[in-house]
Amino acid sequence: MKKIRKILLNESDMPRQWYNLAADIKVPPFMSPNGPVPEEAWAPVFPMNLVEQEYSTQRWIDIPEGILELLTKWRPSPLHRAYELEQAIGTPARIYYKNESLSPAGSHKPNTAVAQAWYNKEFGITRLSTETGAGQWGSALAFACSLVGLECKVFMVRISFDQKPYRKLMMQTWGATCVASPSKETQAGRNILEKTPDTPGSLGIAISEAIEAAVTDTTGNTRYSLGSVLNHVMMHQTIIGLEAKKQLKIAGENKADVIIGCAGGGSNFAGLAFPFVLDKINGAQIDIIPVEPASCPTLTKGPYVYDHGDTAKMTPLVAMYSLGHSFVPAPIHAGGLRYHGMAPLVSKATKEGLLSPLALHQLESYEAGILFAKTEGIIPAPETTHAIAAVIREAKKAKEEGKQKVILFNFSGHGLLDLTGYDRFLTGQLENYELPDDVIAENLKEIAGYPKP
Amino acid sequence: MKKIRKILLNESDMPRQWYNLAADIKVPPFMSPNGPVPEEAWAPVFPMNLVEQEYSTQRWIDIPEGILELLTKWRPSPLHRAYELEQAIGTPARIYYKNESLSPAGSHKPNTAVAQAWYNKEFGITRLSTETGAGQWGSALAFACSLVGLECKVFMVRISFDQKPYRKLMMQTWGATCVASPSKETQAGRNILEKTPDTPGSLGIAISEAIEAAVTDTTGNTRYSLGSVLNHVMMHQTIIGLEAKKQLKIAGENKADVIIGCAGGGSNFAGLAFPFVLDKINGAQIDIIPVEPASCPTLTKGPYVYDHGDTAKMTPLVAMYSLGHSFVPAPIHAGGLRYHGMAPLVSKATKEGLLSPLALHQLESYEAGILFAKTEGIIPAPETTHAIAAVIREAKKAKEEGKQKVILFNFSGHGLLDLTGYDRFLTGQLENYELPDDVIAENLKEIAGYPKP
Repeated sequence: MKKIRKILLNESDMPRQWYNLAADIKVPPFMSPNGPVPEEAWAPVFPMNLVEQEYSTQRWIDIPEGILELLTKWRPSPLHRAYELEQAIGTPARIYYKNESLSPAGSHKPNTAVAQAWYNKEFGITRLSTETGAGQWGSALAFACSLVGLECKVFMVRISFDQKPYRKLMMQTWGATCVASPSKETQAGRNILEKTPDTPGSLGIAISEAIEAAVTDTTGNTRYSLGSVLNHVMMHQTIIGLEAKKQLKIAGENKADVIIGCAGGGSNFAGLAFPFVLDKINGAQIDIIPVEPASCPTLTKGPYVYDHGDTAKMTPLVAMYSLGHSFVPAPIHAGGLRYHGMAPLVSKATKEGLLSPLALHQLESYEAGILFAKTEGIIPAPETTHAIAAVIREAKKAKEEGKQKVILFNFSGHGLLDLTGYDRFLTGQLENYELPDDVIAENLKEIAGYPKP
Repeated sequence: MKKIRKILLNESDMPRQWYNLAADIKVPPFMSPNGPVPEEAWAPVFPMNLVEQEYSTQRWIDIPEGILELLTKWRPSPLHRAYELEQAIGTPARIYYKNESLSPAGSHKPNTAVAQAWYNKEFGITRLSTETGAGQWGSALAFACSLVGLECKVFMVRISFDQKPYRKLMMQTWGATCVASPSKETQAGRNILEKTPDTPGSLGIAISEAIEAAVTDTTGNTRYSLGSVLNHVMMHQTIIGLEAKKQLKIAGENKADVIIGCAGGGSNFAGLAFPFVLDKINGAQIDIIPVEPASCPTLTKGPYVYDHGDTAKMTPLVAMYSLGHSFVPAPIHAGGLRYHGMAPLVSKATKEGLLSPLALHQLESYEAGILFAKTEGIIPAPETTHAIAAVIREAKKAKEEGKQKVILFNFSGHGLLDLTGYDRFLTGQLENYELPDDVIAENLKEIAGYPKP
């Protein structure tokens, strides 16, 4: 064979440390009405070993052996060269993608799920509670808990619970309990059901229920787990970018020119990009592009503010780009990108000019997804299609400029459980959603009086 | 890390030849009313380069470079050591599995789909037609045709078409046309719809339609493609076992003691097992076990006969174990194992005592699938759970005997699009189906007068 298509790493070549961008970028602290939130305040919510990571500013943090062994269930993931996509575009750019769709749950989410499950187990916790929107995170945590031996309780937004039964069935097959949210199991859920018995639910409500289920467990053996946004989650995902750097070197590439990932809460983007952000801080010339949906343009149209992470205002204030905690994004199929805020580290890196965010519409994204499926062969998750659409734009730009750029993106997940979106696209039932500026302004009124980061 | 969990191969270590068991086991010829079917008779159905392979008795056949490049989209596949499953069973056996679930279509089927698509393209064909039951094969061929640049038409059994929309959507996303069978597009379909407009369809009917669509295309540019049973299909799959042998050596294993795969038409089993059958022919001590469902016990309860490959008797007579071409298996969720016959090469190897077939019930299989999902992390396809159940039996036997056996099995596909079966199992809605001997005898009456192999 003339061409090597995939760069593989052996298990012995796996990174032994995560990269913590908080060592190089200072994010403003979590805020409560009493001022900055101290580490101890999180004790009922997270195990203290993870709280310590959340507050750490140490640059490199050792990955425990136990977590490495869990990760080797599917890692290291291959780095693919996208020859056929390049050819279809006719670009001189060399396009690489890190294939995170090969995990048993089908996405990058298990990278932090197994780490969080392991640290909780180590801390003596026996049960985790979490929320899930479209179901990617809930199924990843169910998978991780089954491997580590923890109970797992997932509050799943009712409309997804009803419309996406396969995700729920994945969780159940791995032994997790999955209930529709709002549920009658929590005070938060009961309150909402009393007022609006027919509510489709929301991520905000589900977060409230999952946190309540953790902090009200009188045995003290339950904690809450979050699949994105937080510093320690971003850090667990950096194994993606650290592997990719080794693989690019093996492929004979001295540097990457463009790094791309889709961004909802920020974790798959951060996982690939942060090790390259470090290079950029150290002087490298790299374009690093988080891609968000035009219908939920947090980084490109939101202000950098203090806001709550959830609709019900259960969380402290977080310094981030936000469209307002009460913003309800349009019903695009990329459920994982429908979040009003953005991880503090991704937000601060954007604020400091290290990232070049881009907002794309879903029709362009699905078209890119179809081209990828027909050339490279893998059907991308609706979220991932946003990254691919940006890659195609960059590859066309390289063609116009006649430049042999190296473009690297994160193939964050496959779309095998999201095929109804493709069906609706192919049958012309999908449309783009433009978010008018006055709607954004209206949503942000509520947080106008909040402290500024 | 103390333990290496996966043995990877580089693309440069991929096998360069397929193994053709027909060189070492002679199967009786296809028969028609005029006697043995000559190669030329297949010309309207298959391209002649594949017909030549079907009739070949050459032991090693070169894999064309073009096919190797297509295979590297996802191959070589990893060989995993199942440490946690071993631990859960408490067995001294070392269990390995070849992970064929990582292909973009989620199973081993693309191994022959890309080869068949490539040979058809090479022969000047522009369009393939095929049938699919549960949808695994149809989606694999749709994937292959999109990569190679062929049109693809899939006749999908109506009940699956209606009940498993995700498989149909996969095919459409890769650009294939998928219609419910019986359809109005063929004479065979129209005849059946006229008599029974509400029929749920059957694999036999779908085969008739797919063959008719190929042979009646007056442009001469359409051929038919079959995903199992035939010699050339078995041969394309042997890359699985050939890779596994290299990987076992790297793992430090001098030999495998037990080889296991589930068997419907026989292709995933053959793919893993045939290279080891060659070792057995040459004197090695190996137990080689095809596992079939107890509700469709072709190898364990059927006679070795000449029978048609399809219900509608479109195909010539094939020498194989069969439950009769009119046998309709019980509605188990392992749709890929619901076939009345068995590949001629698998059948003849069984007849010659080289294989030790085993029939297992679906409840034992699902229980094994759940244990695998919770220990090794991947949710198996319902078909694959049959292999896992047999592995667990063998591992328990090794425990009783105190033997450190090496057990290797084929993890033929993931179950992410088959989760309703797990749901029904977990909620107690599934039952075993015993097939009474008198039903088998009744079914076989029709073929009593056929020639004997």
